[in-house]
Amino acid sequence: MSEDETLDPEDWESVRRSFHDAVDLAIDHLRGIRDKPVWTPTPDSVKEKLRGALPRGGEPLERLVSSVAQDMLPYGNGNIHPRFFGWVHGAGNLAGALGEMLAGFMNSNLGGRDHVAIYVERQIIAWCKEIFSYPAESSGILTSGTSMGTVIALAAARQAQGGEELPRLGMAGVEKRLVGYASSEAHSSVAKAFDLLGFGREALRLVPVDETFRLSLPHLTQMIAADRAAGLDPAIVVASAGTVNTGAIDDVDAIAELCREQRLWLHVDGAFGGLAVLLPEFRPRLASIARADSVAFDFHKWLQVPYDAGCVLVKDEHAHRAAFTARRDYLAPAHRGLVGGDPWFCDYGPELSRGFRALKVWFTIKAHGIDKLSAIIARNCRQAQLLGEAVAASGDLELLAPVSLNVVCFRFAAAGLAAAELDRLNDEIVAELQLRGIAAPSTTRIHGRTAIRVALVNHRTRNEDLMLLVDAARRLGHESLAAWRAQGGSL
Amino acid sequence: MSEDETLDPEDWESVRRSFHDAVDLAIDHLRGIRDKPVWTPTPDSVKEKLRGALPRGGEPLERLVSSVAQDMLPYGNGNIHPRFFGWVHGAGNLAGALGEMLAGFMNSNLGGRDHVAIYVERQIIAWCKEIFSYPAESSGILTSGTSMGTVIALAAARQAQGGEELPRLGMAGVEKRLVGYASSEAHSSVAKAFDLLGFGREALRLVPVDETFRLSLPHLTQMIAADRAAGLDPAIVVASAGTVNTGAIDDVDAIAELCREQRLWLHVDGAFGGLAVLLPEFRPRLASIARADSVAFDFHKWLQVPYDAGCVLVKDEHAHRAAFTARRDYLAPAHRGLVGGDPWFCDYGPELSRGFRALKVWFTIKAHGIDKLSAIIARNCRQAQLLGEAVAASGDLELLAPVSLNVVCFRFAAAGLAAAELDRLNDEIVAELQLRGIAAPSTTRIHGRTAIRVALVNHRTRNEDLMLLVDAARRLGHESLAAWRAQGGSL
Repeated sequence: MSEDETLDPEDWESVRRSFHDAVDLAIDHLRGIRDKPVWTPTPDSVKEKLRGALPRGGEPLERLVSSVAQDMLPYGNGNIHPRFFGWVHGAGNLAGALGEMLAGFMNSNLGGRDHVAIYVERQIIAWCKEIFSYPAESSGILTSGTSMGTVIALAAARQAQGGEELPRLGMAGVEKRLVGYASSEAHSSVAKAFDLLGFGREALRLVPVDETFRLSLPHLTQMIAADRAAGLDPAIVVASAGTVNTGAIDDVDAIAELCREQRLWLHVDGAFGGLAVLLPEFRPRLASIARADSVAFDFHKWLQVPYDAGCVLVKDEHAHRAAFTARRDYLAPAHRGLVGGDPWFCDYGPELSRGFRALKVWFTIKAHGIDKLSAIIARNCRQAQLLGEAVAASGDLELLAPVSLNVVCFRFAAAGLAAAELDRLNDEIVAELQLRGIAAPSTTRIHGRTAIRVALVNHRTRNEDLMLLVDAARRLGHESLAAWRAQGGSL
Repeated sequence: MSEDETLDPEDWESVRRSFHDAVDLAIDHLRGIRDKPVWTPTPDSVKEKLRGALPRGGEPLERLVSSVAQDMLPYGNGNIHPRFFGWVHGAGNLAGALGEMLAGFMNSNLGGRDHVAIYVERQIIAWCKEIFSYPAESSGILTSGTSMGTVIALAAARQAQGGEELPRLGMAGVEKRLVGYASSEAHSSVAKAFDLLGFGREALRLVPVDETFRLSLPHLTQMIAADRAAGLDPAIVVASAGTVNTGAIDDVDAIAELCREQRLWLHVDGAFGGLAVLLPEFRPRLASIARADSVAFDFHKWLQVPYDAGCVLVKDEHAHRAAFTARRDYLAPAHRGLVGGDPWFCDYGPELSRGFRALKVWFTIKAHGIDKLSAIIARNCRQAQLLGEAVAASGDLELLAPVSLNVVCFRFAAAGLAAAELDRLNDEIVAELQLRGIAAPSTTRIHGRTAIRVALVNHRTRNEDLMLLVDAARRLGHESLAAWRAQGGSL
């Protein structure tokens, strides 16, 4: 390598062409997505091609672009397809992809310092405060998603609730025995956050839910009292604004009132459902997120920003910052030059290096506007009602949970089958829907029974896609049933 | 909005053109980067333009692309410029940006499930195991960077060292009082990880360094013995493979031996320096990373992958997985369909949603090959030596620390100035270098004195850039000195 050689190309025009080619094939792929299978298993031959020792020499960009076209685009996650209904996966959008591309070029590190990317992220956070009616002096930071947002929020909660000595002495060094509460339907990321922060799994009390899968307030009240009586220190409640299983929305307002009385930190997991606050029909149930001490949610779900992008807002800026500040000499701030830009984002989260994910959020919101993004959310909720009605009317499908937001849990039901057989039958239906590329719902368990679970967060989904799903689920159910019966009866 | 309207464009050709235009202007910006100022403060007018309420309506993509061209590209972080020497910032590369763009289109979620992106990330991790001679059965995961990698590694360490009951009862519920050790020169992310995990700041013992800024093994040995005598439970040592202040490399082999004897978990912070293991000249000092229980490092520094991208490897796959597994019903694995792909990455870190950052790493390594990437690392180390020699030969600059890797700490020295005056003079030089767009070193404190700190991790830096820096630092030092003296003597 010559002394002045860099990783920049000698032939800039050829690189430019590779970018243009990659843009073209990715756009063509997306444009034709409806006519492709939702999901195609990655062939063994592709897995084999990807394997290999660390490459010593380089390859031309155009060859790598061809590899992506041939070996990657056809075997994606499925969530850019209109009939992907699994888990809670956003479908992405082109403006966001353009933002991500430009972030790749700019190569900014948003841990801190004074550069324009910082101001873009701050603007996104200001918009989020506007959405959730959070005060201007609250703090916030973009994250990879709600899981990290919850970790950050609960670290701030611990800082605020753990007493002065906890940061120095740790969880084991103080008298307080902090415990927290979330419903039994809360997302697993809440338990993971408690684990990571060192609370221990037992410190997260799982509160029973009512018949609509919402946290039971009487149970919460009793559990707090019992823990206090046992000498523990109730400190945190996590409310779910849209549970992943059924889309249930906890009674945030009543929980906020209890937290105020009991001096507990209220964190809201609004991963996807929180953004329904944008809709008049859900605003009454979600406006009280403004009363919570913190809220975490995702841009990559219902706002269709490409993965990954989430946000956490914290009302107590001081606790938030104190939980994460640990600057050393080489990060000392100054008022002049690149080291300006205080406050630095690295003081509000665990990461010192942070990419410019704000740009894809900025592109998504600026290109589409929040009204159109909200209209997609509203349509998905209408689609969930419609699907719920179609299931109820179908005769051989049954709803397993009320449809409160955008999640529909149902199953194929057939008389005379044992519970375990029905579970296997529904697992089979979902696997076949996926393997045949027809649609991609996921499964979950509702009251101990396997459910076909459809989460609608996809701007490409049309009503006809739902009807196609209902028809296919019924057809596959009958097919499997007939095949099994032909093979001798028992499933 | 009509029932079938999506976020996809009506006019696909116009979006395609916006992408092409964005590619062209970003490539042109990068191509001419050497002739631009290293850094330009974001003007107030730009900050003002970025401000505004949450946009209700959308804007055409071409207008957003123009905003980026006008208001963002000129006010970037500076690290894509050949004379950015601050902190430890990689310079990025076009192949990586192309990978990032395609990841934006694919919109994959690598929390789990069975799709091609998972196999790409697994391949990157296999290459990392190859680089650090880690066994094939060790586990790993891509992260936003070493800060998160260290959090994950130390959570695995706690799982392995804390005893069976810690996950259930938490740090406060078990007898063990875990403590860890790192040198006083260790990166602040180590202290932040201890904080986050609930150890408490005092549980991280800062071990003094020797005259070359390496962790002092005699002190470490004594401190472990004293802690055991005091009834504490020494559990973890974090060694630095390249400190951020001076690039010092701890004696990993000797520390590994001590950890083996004492049954401590050894984690190596290899954020940038770890990758020097690729070079024959550093291999003897870094090969013992293979003896560590875990290692975290960054792709976005010395491998020039666009921000953000790092990795953590953990030898004890079981402890790693146990520290993070918490699946619920809706994430139950299955052998058929999309829910295959076990093991899922969400079981090896705190994140359930994870973008396809592996693709920009894949593009970077495949396009350039590890030999060329290693040659850049080697050249940066040669440049550090060269700069050290130029400083020593200059007469009015002095080295403040030995140059052991790629970091050069020096200052402008003038006879007859008090210590505080010299510090201010050197702060002034760095601020002026940045504000005039000449070069962007950062500052740090070495033995209590302000140092001009140059970290060479930039593939665009030429030797002439270093000479330009030396000349400019001297000139600015004399200028400031003269100006201050003209104003009446005292600084």
